[in-house]
Amino acid sequence: MLVEATDGTLTEQVMALVRTRIERRQLVSGARLPSVRAMAEAAGVSKSTVVEAYDRLVAEGAIRARPGSGFYVAAPLAPLTIAAVDSRADLAIDPLWMLRESLSPRPGAILAGGGCLPDDWLPVELLRKGLRTIARTAPLTSMTNYSTAMGSEPVRRLIARRMGEQGVDVATDQILLTDSGTQAIDLICRFLIEPGDVVLIDDPCYFNFQALLRAHRARPIGVPFTPHGPDVEAFQQALEEHLPRLYITNSAIHNPTGASLSAPVAHRLLKLAEAHDLLIVEDDIFADFETVPSARLAAFDGLDRVIRVGSFSKSLTSAVRCGHIAARRDWIAALADLRIATGMSSSPISAELVHTVLTDGAYRRHMEKIRGRLEQTMTRVIPRLAEIGIVPWIEPSGGMFLWARLPDDLDAVAVTRHALRSNIVLAPGNVFSVSQSAGSYLRLNVARMGDDRVFEVLEAAMAHCGRGQGLAIPPSDH
Amino acid sequence: MLVEATDGTLTEQVMALVRTRIERRQLVSGARLPSVRAMAEAAGVSKSTVVEAYDRLVAEGAIRARPGSGFYVAAPLAPLTIAAVDSRADLAIDPLWMLRESLSPRPGAILAGGGCLPDDWLPVELLRKGLRTIARTAPLTSMTNYSTAMGSEPVRRLIARRMGEQGVDVATDQILLTDSGTQAIDLICRFLIEPGDVVLIDDPCYFNFQALLRAHRARPIGVPFTPHGPDVEAFQQALEEHLPRLYITNSAIHNPTGASLSAPVAHRLLKLAEAHDLLIVEDDIFADFETVPSARLAAFDGLDRVIRVGSFSKSLTSAVRCGHIAARRDWIAALADLRIATGMSSSPISAELVHTVLTDGAYRRHMEKIRGRLEQTMTRVIPRLAEIGIVPWIEPSGGMFLWARLPDDLDAVAVTRHALRSNIVLAPGNVFSVSQSAGSYLRLNVARMGDDRVFEVLEAAMAHCGRGQGLAIPPSDH
Repeated sequence: MLVEATDGTLTEQVMALVRTRIERRQLVSGARLPSVRAMAEAAGVSKSTVVEAYDRLVAEGAIRARPGSGFYVAAPLAPLTIAAVDSRADLAIDPLWMLRESLSPRPGAILAGGGCLPDDWLPVELLRKGLRTIARTAPLTSMTNYSTAMGSEPVRRLIARRMGEQGVDVATDQILLTDSGTQAIDLICRFLIEPGDVVLIDDPCYFNFQALLRAHRARPIGVPFTPHGPDVEAFQQALEEHLPRLYITNSAIHNPTGASLSAPVAHRLLKLAEAHDLLIVEDDIFADFETVPSARLAAFDGLDRVIRVGSFSKSLTSAVRCGHIAARRDWIAALADLRIATGMSSSPISAELVHTVLTDGAYRRHMEKIRGRLEQTMTRVIPRLAEIGIVPWIEPSGGMFLWARLPDDLDAVAVTRHALRSNIVLAPGNVFSVSQSAGSYLRLNVARMGDDRVFEVLEAAMAHCGRGQGLAIPPSDH
Repeated sequence: MLVEATDGTLTEQVMALVRTRIERRQLVSGARLPSVRAMAEAAGVSKSTVVEAYDRLVAEGAIRARPGSGFYVAAPLAPLTIAAVDSRADLAIDPLWMLRESLSPRPGAILAGGGCLPDDWLPVELLRKGLRTIARTAPLTSMTNYSTAMGSEPVRRLIARRMGEQGVDVATDQILLTDSGTQAIDLICRFLIEPGDVVLIDDPCYFNFQALLRAHRARPIGVPFTPHGPDVEAFQQALEEHLPRLYITNSAIHNPTGASLSAPVAHRLLKLAEAHDLLIVEDDIFADFETVPSARLAAFDGLDRVIRVGSFSKSLTSAVRCGHIAARRDWIAALADLRIATGMSSSPISAELVHTVLTDGAYRRHMEKIRGRLEQTMTRVIPRLAEIGIVPWIEPSGGMFLWARLPDDLDAVAVTRHALRSNIVLAPGNVFSVSQSAGSYLRLNVARMGDDRVFEVLEAAMAHCGRGQGLAIPPSDH
């Protein structure tokens, strides 16, 4: 009724006004909206228009009415929707969907698109042994106290030595321990970027970079990725066009493509970064999966404008939270301060556990075994995929990922939705693509494709979608 | 020379201009400054004025000159200086000094002002036993995987039950696990406040609240604290004057005073919060130290506009990072999303350890023992302090803290500096006071005053400073 009674466009203007204030957090959740009269005066519209606008916002669930008290912002601005794992069926298949599926796996599901090794590939006995060891040997203070501001000295020495082996010359006091690689990048973003800043990412890239940048209200700009690193011409153009503050990338065994940065591209990137005062975050989380070490921006640059982050979540376990940042001393000091003010210091017990496991010769043997096992699996999976018409973009030199294009430009989201019915979780390309230009790609995790059912379901889903019966693709929720 | 050659005020204007841009992060660390010519034109001053301004900024260390390349922002904006533990002698004694002393204790020092129990008061054997247990019993997925978005279900159920015993009615899906109580408050600040927002804190309050709010570039306003909670009249005045978004407090066994919120004050605070749309964060980290449970804002309010946070860092250990947030479902979902985007989920191994220890009957006995031991210590320490003329503000009903005034308005910072020479670390009142109005107070930790040397050193330091020979008080660095 009201809709007809008043001017729709004016009403929508008032609604837009309120929405903007909520988005900008000028009105936080629980805050009272201006009274109908006040809003009517402010917006120069009739009170009935405001009443209608408020009613519609209530209907939308954006605000709620409290009898005799006025209107209030109902739900807080949820920057993401990861935790809500119920009624997944109708959720958009986007980076957050991928996070949901990874953190709360469906019972019995095969995460053929997953980002981690299967549980039984990880050195569980080594971890249990490590727990028993630290129960016995960890010093009193590691059992009771916060760690120092920078985190465990022995673990930092260990990381410095490992980086040295990759040609990155770094001192222990240039390394700060964090709770995870993600927290490492988050601290760097808090430290260096402001809402609205442009940040370059690879297209495609690890989907959580997009979620993280959204949480910082930064503007991600994608640079097309080639088998040797980002497209240098496009990179230069993005620098000139968008004046980004930061570039976030994986250099070795890139997620999701499995590609590795070449030395010439690394050299050209760093020259461009220097010329445009660009800072670079190099996420080296897959370092231990390399058979032949590839170029490292941090090695070329010597940690001048490159900040290197890493963790053991992929090679050891993601159940123990231990990441790190290596950067210029003055930045590390400031990052440590920020880290303590916002979460105190890292867990000495986790550090003891990581140190115990990593200094056990069995860890090196574990990684050798993993690398060999992945290599074999890769050589088995690629021809098997070829049989059903799926060809990888490149054959990676290491790691668990295959970036593969579906035949006939099949829609990867439709294929994913169909495969979900058989409890196979795929990772459609656009989840990784800020420009949504990877619509017919999949990221496959070869370590999770041991069961031939994966190929059968894939083939069936492709056939189904090929017959033009792909399910509707809901709009991405960001 | 240059100083005389050009107009000092103009030079300072240019310097101020650059400083502001650095503070606002318009110029981040490593960024190139405008060329001398460009700046001269922009600021409408002579190039020699800009040269002098840049030279002085270089001398200050704010920027650095790169030969043939120009001027660059040297050190990043360090919001705090905690990590730099070297040359402590000349550091201001402020909240960050306190954090430094707590995280990197001087060898052999007695932290008579410290915020935690001594190592040997904590249930170390229980923790070692817990590690052995989870080494044996933790399920595969807890050893290898991220936890779910919300964190360990059993631990959340445990926390819900414990809150129930405090009269806070909360469902498991209203509880989000974090890595610490500090991270819990940090997530809430990220979610609810913007730079420049006003946040009310108690005066005095836990010093890290100030550091945390600085990291968020929020504006802390102190409300005088009484033995029954914040001064309600001053609280109301602050609401009307500053329109704060948030109030952060400890309700039970307040840090640093040891006071507890009374039911009438809690009631009046919540009425004011309702009337002014104020949200409240109630940090309940000392809950387990209460002999008689006091009023809880979360219990009165039913988690409508009160967000409750807590952790086990004080009662169990700070070496295992495990905190929590209890709040409205819609907020918890959004906070979980933010948490995952910025640091993934919490450690299942830490959660297994906390759950194992807390469900062991020995933990309840441990806390009973601690409460009894603290009560005895308290009754021993208070008269001993009286002998040297130190009288506590109140006699707390529980916990480890005494908030005590020095006789003759002695300067607590001077006394602290003097005591440091004997390796006794005190906590001077202004470290906790945003208004710097607690200059002759000390926070004392009775659990750390078993050694009579503490009293002797205190007495000597007081005598020294009383003779008007107090050391110079450097300006607080914020």
